[in-house]
Amino acid sequence: MPWKKLPIKPLAYGLPGSILVALGAYKYGQYNALHNPPLNMFPNSSTTKLKSLQPPKYCRDLSSVIPEIAGIGVEVVSSKPEIEHHTSNDFTTHPPKHGEVPQYIVYPTSTEQVSRVLKICNRELVPVVPFSGGSSIEGNFHSTRRGIVVDTSRMNKVLAINDDDLDVVVQCGVNWQRLNEDLEPYGLMFGTDCGPSGLISGMIATNASGVNASRYGAMTANVISVTAVLADGTIVKTRQRPRKTSAGYNLTSLFVGSEGTLGIVTEAVVKVYPKPKSETVVVVQFPSISHATKTVAQVFRSGIQPSAIELLDANMVHCLNYGKYTNKPMLEVPTLFFKIGGINGTVVKESLKILQAITKQNEAASFQFAKNKQEQEELFSARKNALYAMTDWSRSEIDQDIRMWPTDIAVPLSKLSHVLTMINTWIKDSPFKSTIVAHAGDGNFHASIFYRPEQRDEAEKMVNKMVELGIVNDGTATGEHGIGNSKRKFLELELGEDTIGMMRKIKMALDPNRILNPDKVFKIDPNDEGLH
Amino acid sequence: MPWKKLPIKPLAYGLPGSILVALGAYKYGQYNALHNPPLNMFPNSSTTKLKSLQPPKYCRDLSSVIPEIAGIGVEVVSSKPEIEHHTSNDFTTHPPKHGEVPQYIVYPTSTEQVSRVLKICNRELVPVVPFSGGSSIEGNFHSTRRGIVVDTSRMNKVLAINDDDLDVVVQCGVNWQRLNEDLEPYGLMFGTDCGPSGLISGMIATNASGVNASRYGAMTANVISVTAVLADGTIVKTRQRPRKTSAGYNLTSLFVGSEGTLGIVTEAVVKVYPKPKSETVVVVQFPSISHATKTVAQVFRSGIQPSAIELLDANMVHCLNYGKYTNKPMLEVPTLFFKIGGINGTVVKESLKILQAITKQNEAASFQFAKNKQEQEELFSARKNALYAMTDWSRSEIDQDIRMWPTDIAVPLSKLSHVLTMINTWIKDSPFKSTIVAHAGDGNFHASIFYRPEQRDEAEKMVNKMVELGIVNDGTATGEHGIGNSKRKFLELELGEDTIGMMRKIKMALDPNRILNPDKVFKIDPNDEGLH
Repeated sequence: MPWKKLPIKPLAYGLPGSILVALGAYKYGQYNALHNPPLNMFPNSSTTKLKSLQPPKYCRDLSSVIPEIAGIGVEVVSSKPEIEHHTSNDFTTHPPKHGEVPQYIVYPTSTEQVSRVLKICNRELVPVVPFSGGSSIEGNFHSTRRGIVVDTSRMNKVLAINDDDLDVVVQCGVNWQRLNEDLEPYGLMFGTDCGPSGLISGMIATNASGVNASRYGAMTANVISVTAVLADGTIVKTRQRPRKTSAGYNLTSLFVGSEGTLGIVTEAVVKVYPKPKSETVVVVQFPSISHATKTVAQVFRSGIQPSAIELLDANMVHCLNYGKYTNKPMLEVPTLFFKIGGINGTVVKESLKILQAITKQNEAASFQFAKNKQEQEELFSARKNALYAMTDWSRSEIDQDIRMWPTDIAVPLSKLSHVLTMINTWIKDSPFKSTIVAHAGDGNFHASIFYRPEQRDEAEKMVNKMVELGIVNDGTATGEHGIGNSKRKFLELELGEDTIGMMRKIKMALDPNRILNPDKVFKIDPNDEGLH
Repeated sequence: MPWKKLPIKPLAYGLPGSILVALGAYKYGQYNALHNPPLNMFPNSSTTKLKSLQPPKYCRDLSSVIPEIAGIGVEVVSSKPEIEHHTSNDFTTHPPKHGEVPQYIVYPTSTEQVSRVLKICNRELVPVVPFSGGSSIEGNFHSTRRGIVVDTSRMNKVLAINDDDLDVVVQCGVNWQRLNEDLEPYGLMFGTDCGPSGLISGMIATNASGVNASRYGAMTANVISVTAVLADGTIVKTRQRPRKTSAGYNLTSLFVGSEGTLGIVTEAVVKVYPKPKSETVVVVQFPSISHATKTVAQVFRSGIQPSAIELLDANMVHCLNYGKYTNKPMLEVPTLFFKIGGINGTVVKESLKILQAITKQNEAASFQFAKNKQEQEELFSARKNALYAMTDWSRSEIDQDIRMWPTDIAVPLSKLSHVLTMINTWIKDSPFKSTIVAHAGDGNFHASIFYRPEQRDEAEKMVNKMVELGIVNDGTATGEHGIGNSKRKFLELELGEDTIGMMRKIKMALDPNRILNPDKVFKIDPNDEGLH
């Protein structure tokens, strides 16, 4: 213990209380001189400014740490394909920088193991990137600090289906589609339907949503409780299983959307819903985007709660026609896809009547609805195939080597038409083509810019301009994908330095050594010169 | 600056980095020796244990602080009735201890003023209790530290009604019933309906709910964004106005339910809903509580979403009969009250058919529904008058000086029948009478024990036993009232020391001087010997 060598006692007399406390902490071994310096430089402040921080210090050489982790009984791998799989994916527009590669992948199989791994990592200052389905596209799991990746996908048991309570208890590595298979015999379903490879842990991390969020909300509306492991290995369960509670801080929601920067979520209680007893799909086409968004607002005002309200712009419909993704060609105009469910066929018919009257008022050019299950699938398949259709079309009609840059902006519904119309005008005046697919019920849209590799800078400028337009219109840079390390600058534009300072204060309190998913959501290192 | 007098520089050579940092902070005036000592004694920990804290230090003599606060232009009062109004209320079973009285009441009228007040209080270590409607009953606003009360009820403007977005922007002193009046012309309503005097700020503070939560959720489901002032006066807005976002930590939900311990909420964006186009009230009576709760589970599984599902036990129905609160006497058996709404009369009728079939399966003794608005009000008035009915009955039949101790337990629906039946058995074997009113859709119930003043200790034992039963059954001590300072021991039983340690770490980070609503939710002072 090096402190013994220092002449602390003689020096201590006459020092103010703060220093004595620091010395005391040091003496009792709670402060390790190798660790990061104390962060409490502004003890009266409710926020942490980036510039007030010292750069974090991390352990680079894991040669003594890895055997200790393996000694717990956790599998540790470092083969090339495993490392590659945990470094990035093919969908992202934001690949990691050179060298942003994990050194090891660790596969715990229990909360207890995660706790033991984090205790070691916190002690040794090993950066830890939590990993789940691996489909995030905003640099949410880049190994910016070359530490370990903790992959929780092997913790994939459904622990309890409480059908009378409409909730289930799951380990967080469960895939949501697999969960739906388990729920099928009960006539139940999970409310969130993000990309097919999503696991509950990653969906919690990014507050994922999808097509059904219009009715069932994003993950934050669907998580009742989580079990999480904090940076120092402490295991917390945020609440028990009642549907509502006023007992203490809402730590559940604090974890949802925190992208693994505050803890590793290992288990969760999530809500489930009865599948609609009767359902249909409606496709309606409109003369303009404004007619479509007015329709959506009036549908909500009528009290109808569609499970999905998806908007495709004229360009997107063109791609569908081009690739023959529909039974017959559609008008190339803004098009709404609705899923309408209910407690029986009569109720669904009543909803359809009201819906049709609203669309008529808004000059709908056509109103198609599915009369049976097969027609439902056929009609909705156009929406489902949007990604393939835009890929086909852009590769064939623009360039085989074309790239796609999707946005994830969300704005209040009343601003959606203005924002989308403005974007389409900008695109027309640009060298780019684009398509728009919107989760219109949530005001969330993916405008995708197609660009050739040499146009990347210009494409980025256009995307930035679009995101800024969304933020100016009381919106967000990200409706469902998260900030990762690619949208940090927009978070500042959206919420301001003080709100981020509050987030950073919470981060520094819960993860004082900054080991958990470093550099995501906001900057934690004053030397971080990342533009985003 | 006293540091100049200390021989720091010569001493500094050879001191480890931590101490140099502490000295640096001290030198730059960020650390004031009068203030609380630094809290970062365990720099590698994600939680704060109570015993690791020094007792907080507060300013007792406000004679220099109050003129400075008044100088901002904020009204400050200290008349006896004002002080009394802000000290406690007549409904609570947990009156403040002797001397737990605020010194001054401060009435800011803007976020900016709240910020200036808190800057002063943080600098001078003045305890601050935020105050709203004043109807909380769990010691949520006791002035345990004799500081000031910040009453935000004069900030009561509705700032914007965004009817197409189904949200409104309000100052937080707005009363929810007054908001509903403003929404009436739009055919809209606020989803949460707590006690009539509730203001938005207090409803956010306690994550309030009420009868309608079965469909519209508690406050946490209805707050989109808040503007809050942190302990050091920093103003944060947690998000903009999109319906969903994945942009950073969910600070909105962190404020909801935090009982003013993390900041003073001054504005909010809250969701509103279209009023049901058609609605009815159904009253159904059952042979047992278990038959009633099975009915509720099956109703949810059917997809029907009642706006309210209220359960009254046989004792409660007896009180209604006793006070003639219904048109004709009801069977004194467990009774469910439903509010069923829909997009039109046909849809409501379809729901009634399904509901009736379910209640028949569960051996309902009667099934009454309202045929018009007047009948709806008559039928539901029985539920609305429950509090008056139980007061009438208990004062006449037990003792004029009878007291009532209500619980606020919530359990998963599947556990509700077991818990309520057990409680009724305990009551039968006790010297007490009781009634039970449950928000059955949420598994939340108020079992009220009637006791004479001399029976208080015994009554408390019974209540404690009931709360413990709820917690053992995967439930919570509080479904909608909050922890205040009367249920802190149950929070520990419910969530464990580590989860509270995480909450305390967040509290200490955001409010390092512990000025905001001290001693609420969990203990912040190792010398706090409060039993609860």
